[in-house]
Amino acid sequence: MHIHFREGDMLKTVAPLSASSFAGGVIMPNLVPPVDSKERLLAYREEIQAAIEPHSFDPYMTLFFKNYSASFLEKIKPNIIGIKLYPAGATTNSESGVKAIDQAEKTIEIMQELGIPLMVHGESDGFVMDREKEFIGIYEYLARKYPRLQITMEHITTAAAVNFLERFENVSATVTLQHLLITLDDVVGGLMQPHHFCKPIAKRPEDREALLEAALNAHPKLMFGSDSAPHPISKKETCGCAAGVFTAPIALQILVDLFEKHGKLENLQAFVSDRAREIYGITPPPKKITFTRKPFTIPAQYGTVVPFRATQETPWSIVQ
Amino acid sequence: MHIHFREGDMLKTVAPLSASSFAGGVIMPNLVPPVDSKERLLAYREEIQAAIEPHSFDPYMTLFFKNYSASFLEKIKPNIIGIKLYPAGATTNSESGVKAIDQAEKTIEIMQELGIPLMVHGESDGFVMDREKEFIGIYEYLARKYPRLQITMEHITTAAAVNFLERFENVSATVTLQHLLITLDDVVGGLMQPHHFCKPIAKRPEDREALLEAALNAHPKLMFGSDSAPHPISKKETCGCAAGVFTAPIALQILVDLFEKHGKLENLQAFVSDRAREIYGITPPPKKITFTRKPFTIPAQYGTVVPFRATQETPWSIVQ
Repeated sequence: MHIHFREGDMLKTVAPLSASSFAGGVIMPNLVPPVDSKERLLAYREEIQAAIEPHSFDPYMTLFFKNYSASFLEKIKPNIIGIKLYPAGATTNSESGVKAIDQAEKTIEIMQELGIPLMVHGESDGFVMDREKEFIGIYEYLARKYPRLQITMEHITTAAAVNFLERFENVSATVTLQHLLITLDDVVGGLMQPHHFCKPIAKRPEDREALLEAALNAHPKLMFGSDSAPHPISKKETCGCAAGVFTAPIALQILVDLFEKHGKLENLQAFVSDRAREIYGITPPPKKITFTRKPFTIPAQYGTVVPFRATQETPWSIVQ
Repeated sequence: MHIHFREGDMLKTVAPLSASSFAGGVIMPNLVPPVDSKERLLAYREEIQAAIEPHSFDPYMTLFFKNYSASFLEKIKPNIIGIKLYPAGATTNSESGVKAIDQAEKTIEIMQELGIPLMVHGESDGFVMDREKEFIGIYEYLARKYPRLQITMEHITTAAAVNFLERFENVSATVTLQHLLITLDDVVGGLMQPHHFCKPIAKRPEDREALLEAALNAHPKLMFGSDSAPHPISKKETCGCAAGVFTAPIALQILVDLFEKHGKLENLQAFVSDRAREIYGITPPPKKITFTRKPFTIPAQYGTVVPFRATQETPWSIVQ
C-alpha cells in the first residue's frame, strides 16, 4: 500500500517484480516533475500497465498534493485512491511539497467532502530522530478538524505513531518491511549501511518492537506498505547516498518467515492485504501465492538495484 | 589530547599536519597489531619522530589496554602518558579490547598505584544513541573504587557525560571538534554523510549544546582531543564506510572561528592546551600559532584523506 515504481527503465525493472507477487499497490507520485495533472497521471498509469502482465496487478494511483480545485478533484476522483502530501524537502523529490499545513486546508476540506483519502509523509523538519513524533500534532489537528477525512500515516516508524492509531477513527497507517526488522543500529551502529538508509530513518529498539507487535497481531488500522524505493547502485553506495530501501521482490518471503517465526502466520493475509481492502474499499484481482520451505538466496542486484538483505538467504521461497 | 596517526604512508601524511600547528598530542594505540609492548611502543614513537620536524611536537604515547604486570608497567611508565581501554568491538581495530571491566581490574589497580592515567573509549554494546550514557555506570564504578586513578572519558558526545564530570575529582574528558559542531542530523538527517560518521556517533542537539557550552567556557575538566582519524577516501566513500573524521590540519582554524563567534576567544588557549597541561602535568614545547582573518579554503583532500568540511571556507588562516 505504498510503493515507488519510478519511470522509464527503472519502472520496467521494478514494476514486474511487484506485479508478480502482489495483487495491487499504491503508486507514489514523487516523480520529477510530480504527478499533479490528469494527463500525467493517466500516462503514468499506462506506462505501468505496459510494463506488467495484463490484469495481474492494480496500480492504485495517487496525486502529488497541491492545491487543487473542487472541479478538478471531482473529475479525477475515479482515477485515484488518494492524494499524497509531502512536507517540502522531507524526502526524495519532495522539494515542491507543502510548507505549512494551513496552506493545504482548502484542498483537504474538498477531499473530505469528496471522500478522497489523504496520505501523508508525516515528518517535521526537526532533529532526525524526532521528526515523526513532532508531526503527530499535525495528524491530530487534521484528524479532529476533518473527522470524515480518511488519513493514512505513511511508513510509520515509532511507538508514538502506533499508539496514535488508537485515538482517531479516521486515521490508519502503513508500515514497511524494514521498519519491522531494523533500528538505527543497522544503519550507523556498526559501519555505515547505505542499503538500510531510508526516510523516515529506522528508530529505536522499542519503536521497532511496537511496530512489529502491531503488524504480527494484524492491528485493524495497520497496512503493509513496503515503501520499496529503488535507486541505482551508483546513487546508493557513494558519498551522500540516496534514501530508500528496495524490498518489493523479497518482501513477502521475508514476511512469511517473520510471521511464522512468531507463530502469527494466520495474521499475515490481514496485514498484507485484508486491512487495505477494508480501509480503502478496494478489490484487487484475486491472486494466490504459494510458499515452500526451501531456502531462497536474495540476489545481489535486480538490474542496477541492490535489494534489502542482498546475497542473504531466507528460508521460504515462492512457488513459481 | 586524542589523535590517530596510523602507520606507514598514512602516518607520513598526517603526523606533520598535526605537528605544524600543535605542540603535542596523545597518540592512540589501536593499530594492527595494537601497541602493547615496549618494543612496539618505542618503534612507533621513533616512526612518528622521523616523520615530523625535530622538537616541534611531543607525541604522548599510549599503550593498548591489556592485563599487564606491575613490573612491566613500572618499567614502561616513563614512556607513556596513559593506557587506553577499548571495549572489544567498540571502534576501529578494537577487536582485542576488554570484554568485561572486572577482567581489567587487576591492571587498573596497579595503574592507580603507579599513577598511570586510564583513558577510556566509553561505550556499551547497546543501541547506538545510548552507548555512552549506558557506559557512565562503569565510569562511576571505576571513579569510586579507584579514587587516586586519573580517568579520562575520551571523546564525550552527550550532555550526560558533561554532567558526570562534576561528580568525581578524578574524572576528566576530551571532546572532538566535530562533536561541538554536528549532530546525528549531519550524519543521516539529509543524505548520508560518511565524512561526518565517527564513533561515538554525533548525538542530539541538546548534547551538542552541552558540549559546546562546556568547551567555550573552558570547563576545568574538559580537554580538546580531536580524535582526528584519517581513512583513505576508498574506505570512506564506499558502502560500509569506516568510522572517523579527519580534522587535524583544520581544527585550530575552525576552533578560532567558533570561539570568536561566541565571544569566548580568551578561553581557547585553556581548552586546547592549558587544561591538558594541568590534568596530565605535561610540558610540551612552547609554540605560538598566529591567525589572520583571511579566508582559508579547506582542501578537498590531504593525500588520500578527505578532511572535515572539505572545500568549504573558514574565515581564519594560520600565518605560516
